[in-house]
Amino acid sequence: MALREVFAAPDIAAEFDDAALVRAMLAFERALALAEARCGIVPADAAGVIAQVCDSAHFDAAQLAADARRAGTLTIPFVKRLTAQVAARDATAARYVHWGATSQDVQDTALALAARGASSKLALRLATIGDALAALAVQHRDTPLTGRTLLQAATPVSFGWKAAVWLCAVTRTRASLAQRTGEAAALQFGGASGVRASLGDAGVGVAESLACELDLPLPGTPWHSVRDAVARLGAEVGIACGVLAKIGRDVSLLMQPEVAEASEPAGEGRGGSSALPHKRNPVGSMYALEAGVRASGLVATMVSGVAGEHERGLGQWQYQWWTLAELYAAAGSAADAMVDVITGLRVDADAMARNLDATRGFVYAEALATALAAKLGRQAAASRVEALVRRAIETASTLAAALDADADTSRLLDAQTRTRLFDARTQLGSASDMIDRALAAWRAG
Amino acid sequence: MALREVFAAPDIAAEFDDAALVRAMLAFERALALAEARCGIVPADAAGVIAQVCDSAHFDAAQLAADARRAGTLTIPFVKRLTAQVAARDATAARYVHWGATSQDVQDTALALAARGASSKLALRLATIGDALAALAVQHRDTPLTGRTLLQAATPVSFGWKAAVWLCAVTRTRASLAQRTGEAAALQFGGASGVRASLGDAGVGVAESLACELDLPLPGTPWHSVRDAVARLGAEVGIACGVLAKIGRDVSLLMQPEVAEASEPAGEGRGGSSALPHKRNPVGSMYALEAGVRASGLVATMVSGVAGEHERGLGQWQYQWWTLAELYAAAGSAADAMVDVITGLRVDADAMARNLDATRGFVYAEALATALAAKLGRQAAASRVEALVRRAIETASTLAAALDADADTSRLLDAQTRTRLFDARTQLGSASDMIDRALAAWRAG
Amino acid sequence: MALREVFAAPDIAAEFDDAALVRAMLAFERALALAEARCGIVPADAAGVIAQVCDSAHFDAAQLAADARRAGTLTIPFVKRLTAQVAARDATAARYVHWGATSQDVQDTALALAARGASSKLALRLATIGDALAALAVQHRDTPLTGRTLLQAATPVSFGWKAAVWLCAVTRTRASLAQRTGEAAALQFGGASGVRASLGDAGVGVAESLACELDLPLPGTPWHSVRDAVARLGAEVGIACGVLAKIGRDVSLLMQPEVAEASEPAGEGRGGSSALPHKRNPVGSMYALEAGVRASGLVATMVSGVAGEHERGLGQWQYQWWTLAELYAAAGSAADAMVDVITGLRVDADAMARNLDATRGFVYAEALATALAAKLGRQAAASRVEALVRRAIETASTLAAALDADADTSRLLDAQTRTRLFDARTQLGSASDMIDRALAAWRAG
Amino acid sequence: MALREVFAAPDIAAEFDDAALVRAMLAFERALALAEARCGIVPADAAGVIAQVCDSAHFDAAQLAADARRAGTLTIPFVKRLTAQVAARDATAARYVHWGATSQDVQDTALALAARGASSKLALRLATIGDALAALAVQHRDTPLTGRTLLQAATPVSFGWKAAVWLCAVTRTRASLAQRTGEAAALQFGGASGVRASLGDAGVGVAESLACELDLPLPGTPWHSVRDAVARLGAEVGIACGVLAKIGRDVSLLMQPEVAEASEPAGEGRGGSSALPHKRNPVGSMYALEAGVRASGLVATMVSGVAGEHERGLGQWQYQWWTLAELYAAAGSAADAMVDVITGLRVDADAMARNLDATRGFVYAEALATALAAKLGRQAAASRVEALVRRAIETASTLAAALDADADTSRLLDAQTRTRLFDARTQLGSASDMIDRALAAWRAG
Repeated sequence: MALREVFAAPDIAAEFDDAALVRAMLAFERALALAEARCGIVPADAAGVIAQVCDSAHFDAAQLAADARRAGTLTIPFVKRLTAQVAARDATAARYVHWGATSQDVQDTALALAARGASSKLALRLATIGDALAALAVQHRDTPLTGRTLLQAATPVSFGWKAAVWLCAVTRTRASLAQRTGEAAALQFGGASGVRASLGDAGVGVAESLACELDLPLPGTPWHSVRDAVARLGAEVGIACGVLAKIGRDVSLLMQPEVAEASEPAGEGRGGSSALPHKRNPVGSMYALEAGVRASGLVATMVSGVAGEHERGLGQWQYQWWTLAELYAAAGSAADAMVDVITGLRVDADAMARNLDATRGFVYAEALATALAAKLGRQAAASRVEALVRRAIETASTLAAALDADADTSRLLDAQTRTRLFDARTQLGSASDMIDRALAAWRAG
Repeated sequence: MALREVFAAPDIAAEFDDAALVRAMLAFERALALAEARCGIVPADAAGVIAQVCDSAHFDAAQLAADARRAGTLTIPFVKRLTAQVAARDATAARYVHWGATSQDVQDTALALAARGASSKLALRLATIGDALAALAVQHRDTPLTGRTLLQAATPVSFGWKAAVWLCAVTRTRASLAQRTGEAAALQFGGASGVRASLGDAGVGVAESLACELDLPLPGTPWHSVRDAVARLGAEVGIACGVLAKIGRDVSLLMQPEVAEASEPAGEGRGGSSALPHKRNPVGSMYALEAGVRASGLVATMVSGVAGEHERGLGQWQYQWWTLAELYAAAGSAADAMVDVITGLRVDADAMARNLDATRGFVYAEALATALAAKLGRQAAASRVEALVRRAIETASTLAAALDADADTSRLLDAQTRTRLFDARTQLGSASDMIDRALAAWRAG
Repeated sequence: MALREVFAAPDIAAEFDDAALVRAMLAFERALALAEARCGIVPADAAGVIAQVCDSAHFDAAQLAADARRAGTLTIPFVKRLTAQVAARDATAARYVHWGATSQDVQDTALALAARGASSKLALRLATIGDALAALAVQHRDTPLTGRTLLQAATPVSFGWKAAVWLCAVTRTRASLAQRTGEAAALQFGGASGVRASLGDAGVGVAESLACELDLPLPGTPWHSVRDAVARLGAEVGIACGVLAKIGRDVSLLMQPEVAEASEPAGEGRGGSSALPHKRNPVGSMYALEAGVRASGLVATMVSGVAGEHERGLGQWQYQWWTLAELYAAAGSAADAMVDVITGLRVDADAMARNLDATRGFVYAEALATALAAKLGRQAAASRVEALVRRAIETASTLAAALDADADTSRLLDAQTRTRLFDARTQLGSASDMIDRALAAWRAG
Repeated sequence: MALREVFAAPDIAAEFDDAALVRAMLAFERALALAEARCGIVPADAAGVIAQVCDSAHFDAAQLAADARRAGTLTIPFVKRLTAQVAARDATAARYVHWGATSQDVQDTALALAARGASSKLALRLATIGDALAALAVQHRDTPLTGRTLLQAATPVSFGWKAAVWLCAVTRTRASLAQRTGEAAALQFGGASGVRASLGDAGVGVAESLACELDLPLPGTPWHSVRDAVARLGAEVGIACGVLAKIGRDVSLLMQPEVAEASEPAGEGRGGSSALPHKRNPVGSMYALEAGVRASGLVATMVSGVAGEHERGLGQWQYQWWTLAELYAAAGSAADAMVDVITGLRVDADAMARNLDATRGFVYAEALATALAAKLGRQAAASRVEALVRRAIETASTLAAALDADADTSRLLDAQTRTRLFDARTQLGSASDMIDRALAAWRAG
């Protein structure tokens, strides 16, 4: 584990490490030989030997890297070494290594395989987070807290509803990630220029067989020089970071000591400070926010890579393995952090109530204005409530007290209405229905 | 038409201009009043008056802007003016303007409406481009040209196949744009904090009725504070720019005078130069490439906007109308340009053949190596061909001549094979099948 | 004022509006004619007529735009119309319009002129903000408040020091903006391909004279195809947005009702809410944060534009006028907002003290640990303080009380020390010195 | 060497690898102890022991990473381990490890040290590239080639001038990199909240002494929460990538087989193709272009990191070490590639001449128009030349022949003029003067 992986989910990052890259390239070469054997292009024996060597081949990443730098592509030194290892067992089989393929076929199909693996692991985290959010939505369906818009107190919401808002975004992200992965994790197989020239008429059969062998869809034409599908996937992984950052942002704001309505779980060595022995930092939220900051630039890089020159671009795709790796690592880091945060979240309903009270009823100003509007019209009601708010501020009193003190206004509302208006639990509007919809969508997802 | 719109499709840009923004906001207020009337929240008469005023309301954009700057939101001065116009007709009706809604409801629903309109217009262009590409794919199915990888000659491809590669990307983009628009163009309606508090139990009914009135889907929870869906749409529009830029990049490279295999249509005042009377610039490609350069940064901004604070964010969404407008304007500019370029593209099959010839047969080196590999193994064959290529270069000759001169090698291949190997038309591999798949996918799309 | 300009400083935006673009282009053509007259390339009379026409020329932006779209460049229709207007006065003079120049010369020099003007206006705002921050730094040199790291309470700082931290960033930005403007606002003058071919030997003299006429530096070679200087300027304007966003972020966090230590100035129509009559939103901070969100994507676009193809790029620069305009508009919007916010900031020293108290002395834990470390070593002291903090939390007490109750620990410190340790004013370390350094740097800047 | 480093300069990347990060953190702790000893805060003996342990301390990066993930900061586990290693030698000295510092002090000062080292190595490459460009500018001062604007032939330029244009950008970049490094590579030292509370009055002295010890400037206030200086540096490194990409773009375009005017040096294993034995790819240009694509997104991330919350941000800076590392690695990769490309560039002056000829004189159309304009006025001359160009195209002839055939026009110019007009060497305008200016600026830089 390198220090950079402090900001990664190690098992997701592992889908893109050097061993995984080589492994995915070997998987391509193995499947290619087998597919070509099936189509009669490569002798079955030779394909068998190639497949065996691919299963056990060993590469020195540092030497590979040095040669790749010189060659300008990883595939040439990779194929050269693989061929040598096959030749060591069977000189005839060595003739058929990488037959009919080009460097970008290997590398882009490897990218597809890595993305599929990483998405699957990321999806597991999203499932855990979604389930935990669903539980919070149910448990805190009726736990009121201050709704906050533009970082100011607005009207009450419930914490379960807040969780449902997060959940809806996770639901959308899970579905979109699956779809985008399905589209982008597609076989790339075009040979030198993309038309599979060296396979002649057999190219179609080999391509289908190869796609089948690797369990990847076969797109109509090679995708390596118009990289929209992988850009869409990258954007989705980046947006997943944004969704997780949203949760982290809200939690970290709720965890401010002056607010203290929710907090991340504590634990040995978790969220401490090097200088302040008492401090508990929102480190889970930090990981999610960090990923969110990083995601947008990385997505920009993916979008910049759509348009390669002609049949193979000069610079847009060569590094894309690592850019996508970064995106997945960031999303994995954020997701791991949010798994911890959401499954262990400490919700302080009392603090929520206290902070609502501390607004001195101003969070009910809209409710009051709405009730009065039916009698006075919206703008007159608004003016009246503004005056009451002003009075409450000047007298360091509450809105309820100011209302009581203003007979002209208070007589417009009966006592029961006035009580209801200042009880957050009665002010949650459609929240419960929204929670149900969010839960249903998650369960159906 | 402002100068900035030189880089826009005017009718798509018009979906986001000031008048459109006000119009979309009025559409929201109109539909809200009607929906609330249907649910018994607002008297039918009042709703009728509001709807009428919304149909004919007039606003001074400059005054609105000045007040919006001060207020920090467009909605407050907008609602104030609208209410005044309603009041001028019917004081009672004025009480019900904007009932139960908040500023972000109006603005984000307006965004949804504008996006829907703009996507629909963009889709029309994509349809035209796709049809034109499909025609090119059919017409030039067997027109060979040099395949170029890393800006060097690789092996032959056909121009129809090249068009099919572009077409596949357009097919994917059309489908994805429709889907992302469908997801993002959703009703936003949550009231002050998102729970529709001021509508009490009626909130759900009003929301459904409002969604129906505007023909927009109703998401489980408000989306205004977790903006993943609109980020996905923005990414898609940006990726569309990338796909169009890919076509523009290839066309502009083909149009270089030393290549001259294809060119943009000429026309009065099109692509001239201020200093060079003879010059014909690839201005259509320029528009597409320009949009591609701009898109990635704009997508980054959209992705940066996913995570707002709590129930309404401070800075992530306020400008999003214009960022999305920029993306659509760029995509529209690129699409208009590519409609012209692709429907009017001049393809010079002779020049393509000439340039293939000018490679002195090096583009057939792979075919030769493949043919020899069956006899010699891949690496030995490759070495042999490398030697022939070297010789051809040293003797300023062609690969075919070098092969003929090397009896050891040439005797491995019969005469017919040798002819076939140097005929681009026989070297197109799966190209024709790929074209068929691309056409089928486009027609099915 | 268009609605988009809600997020702009109108006078800065005006440096880049259509009229300004045409005006700057006219300024170039005017100066070119005069410079060429001075070098004997253009008859003095002709230059005089051209200069007069440039002073009064009128253009229809919409027609210009339509023609520019077709031409792929603004300059061709612009020069055509200008030439016609000159010809209407003097057919001979019309021969010399735009002599020796190319479209990018006009447009990039116009960009230089606009940037110079916009920077100068932005610098005025930075000066006002810096002066206001300097005043705050002095006034609140000894006003303690909670230092907050990772959104948790850390140790005390002073509000004056906080202002000084902001001030240092403004100081750096002012200096860097001036420098980058000086570098980027340079003459572009190369003619068709950049070597000023059509001016022959006179090119150098004309270039120097033209630079002098426009009061712009003359770079060694044309900069239009290697756009690093303008990318640096764009990055600087974007970073200015980030610096202003930093201030806005802090102010908006301080203004949260649960914190309430500072607030933006109120004012008629300022920061209200459409649904909540009582609410006061941090709209100034919102503008700064909004600009900060937008800046990074725009900077990315500028950086993407450095590398044009050969002697004039295809897509990187054509839109740059508007990208730079966006950056300046955003920075201007943020700066205007921060002028209001900082010059009108309401600082509540009592609330700051109250919030410090509300930490129950935990913000002094480090001070206590440091004092104890001298006796016990750092880690033993830290453990001891952690235990005290735990006890204070368990007993709902304060750190001071927990210390008093722990005789083993409290006897290590004399009474005076213990008092000092829990007085924020004695815990400000180098804050005052830092303020002095910040003030000195600002004044020297 | 990991595979990712195929796209890095290994020695520059090494300035940011895990060992370098730990080393830089140790350098901070070492210098802190010594500075504090000098100021009488830490006993000299203790500081001596700490310094010795820092010189030889050993860390297991994987364990450090695992603990850092949990803690949310690298510094806590780092300091814990360092303290244990010091304690193993001297329990008293262990009390003074990290005295008065906070985690961000260590990490941001480490960033400053790494940036300084990396900039210095990058500057060496820029120096080599600049010298090689200067040599090319001199050597090819009079080697004409087609100037190309918008990828179309414009008027002639010289290859030496082209090199001078590149050189000017390298000159600016070298100067700006040095300046930005000097500004950003500054001491960060503020303690828990930034005011160095735990050092009391001694904080200023310690800070000055520490800055001196590390040979870093001491800014007026800590910079860790307003990260404009490091954003400027990141932008500069990204712009350096853009400048190198510009050179790579031009070289790769010149190296197209249909153009073939320049080519990258060949060499064993360099730029081969996995499928095409004959191919020579512009891999050096690819590395530069790749870096250019990646740079803009990374710069956006740096700009996004300017505005942290209060005294320490939540997510903007934690990953910045690696983002900056990526930028330097990319710039290093591009610079290494361009060192090879420019020092080994093969310039084919004959091909340049041939391609100029192949334009059939159209590249002289402006010269002809200019010459005629003196007689006919600019627009009449332009029309005349347009007609000649049209005729030359229709008759598959040259502009010179078309001119000869048009007696009305040709008689306006004497024979000598007509010869001159069609000789590229006489059409280079100010090119030579520009080369001299570029050389002078480089030498003065």
